[in-house]
Amino acid sequence: MAEKRRDPVVVIGLGRFGSSLALELTRRGTEVLAIDRRPKVVQALAGQITHIATADATDAEALRQLGVPDFYRAVVGIGNDLESSILTASILVELGIEDIWAKAVSRQHGRILSRIGVHHVVTPEHDMGERVAHLVSGRLLDYMEVDENFALVKTRPPKDFVGRPLGETNLRRKYGVTVVAVKSPEEEFTYATADTELTYDDVIIVAGKPEDVERFADLP
Amino acid sequence: MAEKRRDPVVVIGLGRFGSSLALELTRRGTEVLAIDRRPKVVQALAGQITHIATADATDAEALRQLGVPDFYRAVVGIGNDLESSILTASILVELGIEDIWAKAVSRQHGRILSRIGVHHVVTPEHDMGERVAHLVSGRLLDYMEVDENFALVKTRPPKDFVGRPLGETNLRRKYGVTVVAVKSPEEEFTYATADTELTYDDVIIVAGKPEDVERFADLP
Amino acid sequence: MAEKRRDPVVVIGLGRFGSSLALELTRRGTEVLAIDRRPKVVQALAGQITHIATADATDAEALRQLGVPDFYRAVVGIGNDLESSILTASILVELGIEDIWAKAVSRQHGRILSRIGVHHVVTPEHDMGERVAHLVSGRLLDYMEVDENFALVKTRPPKDFVGRPLGETNLRRKYGVTVVAVKSPEEEFTYATADTELTYDDVIIVAGKPEDVERFADLP
Amino acid sequence: MAEKRRDPVVVIGLGRFGSSLALELTRRGTEVLAIDRRPKVVQALAGQITHIATADATDAEALRQLGVPDFYRAVVGIGNDLESSILTASILVELGIEDIWAKAVSRQHGRILSRIGVHHVVTPEHDMGERVAHLVSGRLLDYMEVDENFALVKTRPPKDFVGRPLGETNLRRKYGVTVVAVKSPEEEFTYATADTELTYDDVIIVAGKPEDVERFADLP
Amino acid sequence: MAEKRRDPVVVIGLGRFGSSLALELTRRGTEVLAIDRRPKVVQALAGQITHIATADATDAEALRQLGVPDFYRAVVGIGNDLESSILTASILVELGIEDIWAKAVSRQHGRILSRIGVHHVVTPEHDMGERVAHLVSGRLLDYMEVDENFALVKTRPPKDFVGRPLGETNLRRKYGVTVVAVKSPEEEFTYATADTELTYDDVIIVAGKPEDVERFADLP
Amino acid sequence: MAEKRRDPVVVIGLGRFGSSLALELTRRGTEVLAIDRRPKVVQALAGQITHIATADATDAEALRQLGVPDFYRAVVGIGNDLESSILTASILVELGIEDIWAKAVSRQHGRILSRIGVHHVVTPEHDMGERVAHLVSGRLLDYMEVDENFALVKTRPPKDFVGRPLGETNLRRKYGVTVVAVKSPEEEFTYATADTELTYDDVIIVAGKPEDVERFADLP
Amino acid sequence: MAEKRRDPVVVIGLGRFGSSLALELTRRGTEVLAIDRRPKVVQALAGQITHIATADATDAEALRQLGVPDFYRAVVGIGNDLESSILTASILVELGIEDIWAKAVSRQHGRILSRIGVHHVVTPEHDMGERVAHLVSGRLLDYMEVDENFALVKTRPPKDFVGRPLGETNLRRKYGVTVVAVKSPEEEFTYATADTELTYDDVIIVAGKPEDVERFADLP
Amino acid sequence: MAEKRRDPVVVIGLGRFGSSLALELTRRGTEVLAIDRRPKVVQALAGQITHIATADATDAEALRQLGVPDFYRAVVGIGNDLESSILTASILVELGIEDIWAKAVSRQHGRILSRIGVHHVVTPEHDMGERVAHLVSGRLLDYMEVDENFALVKTRPPKDFVGRPLGETNLRRKYGVTVVAVKSPEEEFTYATADTELTYDDVIIVAGKPEDVERFADLP
Repeated sequence: MAEKRRDPVVVIGLGRFGSSLALELTRRGTEVLAIDRRPKVVQALAGQITHIATADATDAEALRQLGVPDFYRAVVGIGNDLESSILTASILVELGIEDIWAKAVSRQHGRILSRIGVHHVVTPEHDMGERVAHLVSGRLLDYMEVDENFALVKTRPPKDFVGRPLGETNLRRKYGVTVVAVKSPEEEFTYATADTELTYDDVIIVAGKPEDVERFADLP
Repeated sequence: MAEKRRDPVVVIGLGRFGSSLALELTRRGTEVLAIDRRPKVVQALAGQITHIATADATDAEALRQLGVPDFYRAVVGIGNDLESSILTASILVELGIEDIWAKAVSRQHGRILSRIGVHHVVTPEHDMGERVAHLVSGRLLDYMEVDENFALVKTRPPKDFVGRPLGETNLRRKYGVTVVAVKSPEEEFTYATADTELTYDDVIIVAGKPEDVERFADLP
Repeated sequence: MAEKRRDPVVVIGLGRFGSSLALELTRRGTEVLAIDRRPKVVQALAGQITHIATADATDAEALRQLGVPDFYRAVVGIGNDLESSILTASILVELGIEDIWAKAVSRQHGRILSRIGVHHVVTPEHDMGERVAHLVSGRLLDYMEVDENFALVKTRPPKDFVGRPLGETNLRRKYGVTVVAVKSPEEEFTYATADTELTYDDVIIVAGKPEDVERFADLP
Repeated sequence: MAEKRRDPVVVIGLGRFGSSLALELTRRGTEVLAIDRRPKVVQALAGQITHIATADATDAEALRQLGVPDFYRAVVGIGNDLESSILTASILVELGIEDIWAKAVSRQHGRILSRIGVHHVVTPEHDMGERVAHLVSGRLLDYMEVDENFALVKTRPPKDFVGRPLGETNLRRKYGVTVVAVKSPEEEFTYATADTELTYDDVIIVAGKPEDVERFADLP
Repeated sequence: MAEKRRDPVVVIGLGRFGSSLALELTRRGTEVLAIDRRPKVVQALAGQITHIATADATDAEALRQLGVPDFYRAVVGIGNDLESSILTASILVELGIEDIWAKAVSRQHGRILSRIGVHHVVTPEHDMGERVAHLVSGRLLDYMEVDENFALVKTRPPKDFVGRPLGETNLRRKYGVTVVAVKSPEEEFTYATADTELTYDDVIIVAGKPEDVERFADLP
Repeated sequence: MAEKRRDPVVVIGLGRFGSSLALELTRRGTEVLAIDRRPKVVQALAGQITHIATADATDAEALRQLGVPDFYRAVVGIGNDLESSILTASILVELGIEDIWAKAVSRQHGRILSRIGVHHVVTPEHDMGERVAHLVSGRLLDYMEVDENFALVKTRPPKDFVGRPLGETNLRRKYGVTVVAVKSPEEEFTYATADTELTYDDVIIVAGKPEDVERFADLP
Repeated sequence: MAEKRRDPVVVIGLGRFGSSLALELTRRGTEVLAIDRRPKVVQALAGQITHIATADATDAEALRQLGVPDFYRAVVGIGNDLESSILTASILVELGIEDIWAKAVSRQHGRILSRIGVHHVVTPEHDMGERVAHLVSGRLLDYMEVDENFALVKTRPPKDFVGRPLGETNLRRKYGVTVVAVKSPEEEFTYATADTELTYDDVIIVAGKPEDVERFADLP
Repeated sequence: MAEKRRDPVVVIGLGRFGSSLALELTRRGTEVLAIDRRPKVVQALAGQITHIATADATDAEALRQLGVPDFYRAVVGIGNDLESSILTASILVELGIEDIWAKAVSRQHGRILSRIGVHHVVTPEHDMGERVAHLVSGRLLDYMEVDENFALVKTRPPKDFVGRPLGETNLRRKYGVTVVAVKSPEEEFTYATADTELTYDDVIIVAGKPEDVERFADLP
């Protein structure tokens, strides 16, 4: 049954984004058909991805010969060459691919992709830019925005929360946040409970509204 | 006091990553000095970022004249021009900037940046590639890796967990995961408790080991 | 009232197509706002078109400053730079222009333009290619396809139709065509009637199904 | 005898214009020798055009080896590379081709082609520009200029001409135009007669002087 | 009266050919209007040629503003840029210049120039190539072809013709050539007469059929 | 014996100058080794020149393998690529070629060639520029400068010299020139004598000081 | 034992620096593996260096296949392509090469190389620039800086030191320098002793502080 | 008097070599006129060199205006652009500069420079390549070749020469070398005498024939 769910995926454009994606899928047991127009790039990845081909993805015929129309999902990893990105996405739409992802390098690029029928537009540079904005101040170890009104951060416990059970800290009431998980040095993350006692060296995952989790992380 | 913590940040290279970072910092009240060598790029952002300048960041003198040495933090957003990225980072190290972030476009690039003294190397394309690998199968709405052994996913509740209090589902024991938060249609995320009853339309945040949360999300 | 109907038109991209269009509209009394990114091109046309500006039409802000959102109609004459053509068309859609025309240089280009919301796609090179295919054999002086099943051709009368009233030739019955208009040397075209007598030097407009008008034009 | 008339044609330069021309000729049973210097272009069309070759048409020897001097007609579809266009046309003149057509991208280009001996110069971009000028106002469905003083337009009947026989409308006297053909929804075009009664949904072909047919089409 | 004959000349394209021409004309008192599109070239010659302008000669309007249509003669010295050479020549023809010279860099280029109406086509590289072919063997000091059947060469006298009056040598009868002029060391050329006695150090000009003068120059 | 004198010649660089030279030498029976780095150029001339090779003449080893050191004479026809011209000439000097000719495209280029050891520097563009300066006024049919103080021109006889024997015209005394040869319509050039009577249609060769022959040619 | 010391050396980048180095090492009996990405360069040196390969040294895999990790020493001669220089050096560090030399073309380049782990950075252009600064005044025949406080110069003896034994000149006391070696015309250098008598034509090596040796060399 | 000797020097081409040279000369009190065609380079050095100008040194007129002909010495530091290097050197020769130095990037380049009249040709890349060949084995700390038969090396003393007066070691007899100078840790170099006793930490300068000094340095 697992095979049924892990449909094969076509990945077009094997730059940093596409290759990381294709390799991760391969590691996770998903069958991948990887395509790039640069022979050198294809050659370098050939040992690591089972199905990989050199082809110009703006050429519908080439995609047909590779069997792309038989796939349910495809990801367009082409980024800097806007024209190729749009043409390729457009051909995938025409080939009837039902679930198309594509990387956009600008807002306008993203909008065009959506309009021509791409189902999911991803913007790595933009997302990472916003994420680093939360980290650069040095307090947060990581920042994950779940949606506009809910975020998770990785941080160290403020000193007032060290050394007594979380259940006694009134954290949720006073700061509007909750500690989801905790990681002591040399150990793995585990779920935090009301009994968990944090130490200065712990790393914690805190959930809540973005402004609340940031305010909490700013506590000395 | 908040101001004291939110140190100003130099952002060099205002592509998609750098501009998103600079704009987000500005939105959050952090003072930013943004620098790019392309006058057109600088002009386009001029209304949105207070301190912005056209300069060649591979020219130490130019950075000095802009007062860069007075900053504690800097982010090098230059990506595709490896040489400029490395030269700029190298100059920041020499200028004594204490907290330097830089974007890398390849593994080797990342290693060189680390070796010459960059403190944090970020790899947006690579990270997003791996992240999309988890999403492309369609079940997960989002995937956030906290570290190698702990992940958070946004997904919909499997049908067995709908309609009864979470406390009765033995979720942690049976699947090794915990539901952290839940969002009903038209509402915001709130913390899940033992009393929370999920519906088919809810979206939930589940935490746990990567393989456990993915297995859970695969439940029908 | 005429003014009301002849709405002003924005013409973007002043190559051969766009400039011919803008000049013809100007000649016919339609107000035109012509835009091109090449100062030299704009300068050369400046005396002939009242409202003309140098601007990069892939920059939404620039179009806004020129008042483009106030227009009802726009034509994108950009051809060879696919990326600019698509970006510009896409911005016009977002600015809410209600009637957008755009030139396509390939089938795929045309499809993308349609998909992102362009209302009329024109293909000069392709249309002229097909039209010349009818003329190159030398018999037809012009060929105009009204639709798939009806065409008009300009040709000379076959010898059997010279020297007697058209009404006596049974043309419609025998060849399925009708003579619409006739032009004698040194005169203008006039409508052909049943009494019209053709001479060898006349040029005639014949209407009918494409295969019928071509067969008729092939008569010796 | 039909074969005799449909002489084979050499088409040089297989861009959008040349390829549309060559394909239309092939569809209509005319033998074509298609030539382009780009192997990729030739390969893409190889299945659709019988005689097709990769060659540099500015090399007289290459054209000789392909048998070009045996042809009566040739079309130069090369457009953007002025130098190649002129050199190729010039060689065709020297090879004694009796009927040479060539595409021009500017007025000056057209004049040079005429002067070196090209018999028919076509200007797709310019012609389409002028044609769209008539259509962009939205009333006309198509516009075909027969010559300076006579045009045909496709349009919908003004409301005063709906519901009574054309013979009673005094159209020719009042507006100087004549209705040539009419097409009801779901049907093909047929010749209009004095008895024809138009409906609001019909599409009509109207002939007359350019200003007269446009004035007629502007009637409410 | 001399002024009347020495009409002013437009020289377009100030490379090696055009600048040598313009400077020589200036030296000889002919008024010159020199034009080149390269500001640097124009600047370098500005002190030496009275009327000199930076302009794009493929732009008819630019030439009009410089008063080019008032000239009777023009020389197109543009060489390597075929397109500019042809366009410029073509515009000069249209401006009605009555005596147009142009430099050609290939046979085909020369033919096109002639066909579009250039009156004199010159081919420096080709002519010099043929001329050096006569000199490279070392005997001839210079070779000037008057026409196909008559040439002049500069050479040294063969030993049989030294030391006795030319009138006694039967030169014209035996070799078909005549000695036109003679130059003794340290003196200027003077006309040879029947009394002239040549010495080993003299240089002579010999006239005759090409094969005769070469055969004569080959005598030991 | 003739063969002995017509030594073989190496011609390097087969542009317009080099190819004209090599072809003329071949026509005149001189053995030629022609070299160019462009395979296409070599291929085009391969049928017309016996010994021809594709090689980079800035590579001494390549020239050695072609046997260039065995030649007595060489011509460097490379023009626009100054660096290649100088390097090649410099290698020929080192290979010990005794008689080296080279084409220069500027005064400075010519000086450098002389300084590194080239024996004869030729400047086609410059020479032709000066020559055309004499012709462009329209009177002279050709102009050949023998040296600074002696020139030959081809022109038509002034009217005072028509219709009486040359011996009676006092030409040499009054104008300082002499008529060397004369050509009547449809005939070849022959030597002029004291008895020659010129007609209006004759073409004559006149010798003398440059200013004298020009003054003579200006006579009405 | 000598073999043991003369370890083989990898030389990457065979420009002027790298090839001189590789050839000198070869001459001195050191085994060299020379690598360059340009086939032409490799081919030209192939006869002179035993182990030479065409490879892209920024590709770690390529270096591994050539056995580079087995070497103890490597020299990166790549200069102008900063990116390649840094990437290659960085890979050598990762491959564990213990003694890495690299050429830098700027101060910043040198610093980056040092920081990523290069052991010896050499700067030929800079060193030669400083060295020529000492020679250009014409007195010194050569200048070698041992360290900041000690230099050796090659010069001619000032006149006061000619013709009497060095031991009597008080050179070290009066000028702070010592004469190390002397070379008479047509002979080799030998060590100078107290008995050595210099002549005007001798060349001497003088050692001492930089300012002292220069002052000495300035003596008339 | 010192001023008289330290003539001013023109330095053309301010790359790594030229700028190091110009700065060193400035440091040593020599007046410098530095010239480069790149405004950015000139601007960067403007504060450090008194007389510096942006000019194209292949333009004789530009050099004249800067007063270059008044200088006695000039150095051409232009390297990679062979054409500019040769043209500039050639112009300096013509301007009558009496002492011209120039950098060569290849053997052939060096020969051409010599032939056109450059007095001193320097080859930094080549010299450094050869020098590093001596150092890369690790024993020598520096290697300076005085001429073909005499070299100086910086090295550490072999163990047999430690701890006893140099005068007792028979060094010159046994190894053919002499110790010129010695430097103990934390001290400066001083002349070695017969009484000098070396320690393991000393660095010594050894003079002798190249093979002898290397053999000596190889002693354990």
